[in-house]
Amino acid sequence: MAIPYPHFNPVTSEKPAMEVLSPSPVVMTQDELKRIAAYKAVEMVESGMVVGLGTGSTAKHAVDRIAELLHKGKLKKIIGIPTSTKTHEQALSLGIPLSDLDSHPVLDIAIDGADEVDPNLNLVKGRGGSLLREKMVEGVCKKFVVIVDESKLVKYIGGSGLAMPVEIVPFCWKFTAKRLQELFEYAGCVAKLRTFASANEMENGGLPSVTDNGNYVVDLYFTRDIGDLKAASDAILRLAGVVEHGMFLDMATTVIVAGDRGVTIKNKISNV
Amino acid sequence: MAIPYPHFNPVTSEKPAMEVLSPSPVVMTQDELKRIAAYKAVEMVESGMVVGLGTGSTAKHAVDRIAELLHKGKLKKIIGIPTSTKTHEQALSLGIPLSDLDSHPVLDIAIDGADEVDPNLNLVKGRGGSLLREKMVEGVCKKFVVIVDESKLVKYIGGSGLAMPVEIVPFCWKFTAKRLQELFEYAGCVAKLRTFASANEMENGGLPSVTDNGNYVVDLYFTRDIGDLKAASDAILRLAGVVEHGMFLDMATTVIVAGDRGVTIKNKISNV
Repeated sequence: MAIPYPHFNPVTSEKPAMEVLSPSPVVMTQDELKRIAAYKAVEMVESGMVVGLGTGSTAKHAVDRIAELLHKGKLKKIIGIPTSTKTHEQALSLGIPLSDLDSHPVLDIAIDGADEVDPNLNLVKGRGGSLLREKMVEGVCKKFVVIVDESKLVKYIGGSGLAMPVEIVPFCWKFTAKRLQELFEYAGCVAKLRTFASANEMENGGLPSVTDNGNYVVDLYFTRDIGDLKAASDAILRLAGVVEHGMFLDMATTVIVAGDRGVTIKNKISNV
Repeated sequence: MAIPYPHFNPVTSEKPAMEVLSPSPVVMTQDELKRIAAYKAVEMVESGMVVGLGTGSTAKHAVDRIAELLHKGKLKKIIGIPTSTKTHEQALSLGIPLSDLDSHPVLDIAIDGADEVDPNLNLVKGRGGSLLREKMVEGVCKKFVVIVDESKLVKYIGGSGLAMPVEIVPFCWKFTAKRLQELFEYAGCVAKLRTFASANEMENGGLPSVTDNGNYVVDLYFTRDIGDLKAASDAILRLAGVVEHGMFLDMATTVIVAGDRGVTIKNKISNV
């Protein structure tokens, strides 16, 4: 089901509809698609809500939009819970009232991007480096709305060939990276420390990328499906030295996908 | 089975023997018992081994003893892998050659104390604050020898009424502490941030205790048995914000217990 863009106004379509092929599809940039998905998600935010504010290029549009609606008076009494220091700064500069999980341990909604979305709405997140705080916030919200352009849809987790990040303690990081790689040897896993510089520069004194929590990130690259995701998740978490990983399983309640032909809204089928 | 102390020399008894009631038991201090267990464990160290060096008042005796045997020439070519910055400093000052997990990812043996030992040789560790590095090192050794005085034996994990520590990221620690407490509500759990000062002083600006990895520690106190330990472990690790916990399950291969009546050696029954 995709909603076409009749006037390229992302806020005109209120509800998901059957897919309609646009008679003359217009090619949009990836950033325009991200903005469309973000604006659509912000339609789900209501006055008085406690809102988790995501991190990254797509989530940034949602934060901008929330601030815009607050300033226009169309939204009132929003409390934002940022998922990174970067988003904290953005929201602060836009005048969105902010709080944290200690004061607001339950959120009405969170809106964030994702690096991969599989057919069951499981996600890979954290290529932007903020997976731990995102997972803390997004694990306690009544609705978790994920906004992506269609390039993020994958057949299986890791299927994009891009990184699945794991946040680890700096102490003996090579050892932990090695154990992670061995854990997924069956899926052709390669583990790489995330650095500010290229691998060559790293060996010559480059610096590891450090998270908001002072940890390192090891990026896992798979060449095959890793199979049972919950088992994989537990196996990763059981490694001493691992802080958190970038698989967000059974967390997204809605995924909004913006593509050239329109917006598709996928809702989690409840297991009740 | 306890080996009595005929001459109060901890290194005379080479093998576990049947318990013999000492005709005239001599009351020893807790520190003497710790030293006896430590010396007994060091008998298992052989020249050329890579040895995990534990942290805490009992493990300190083992490190001292290894250094003594090295200096006497009774042990040669030992490489120590310290489990904390404190042990690193101790071993360095004693002249024990040191390395780390990155260079030596497999250890022949590790010797460390524990805060609790249950009948299945599951442990609580980390009241001394070094649980993460200890778990990384002791998770990859062929033999993990635990040394305790008999006060550390419990019927079930948490059964001493003392803390089961959980290392967490500082970000929104109150939130994580609350979730941990809720997780074990059925066992009457109380979660407390570990501080340098008393709780009252903390509220007035005291400082949280910080681990070697820059994290905080939440101490969990149980009033009842938490039941399935593996399930409890996974549930804790699945909380975003948790780095590691102090339950060491299925890790100890030998536990050496020093009591007033002698040394008891408990070996893990292999599941092969």
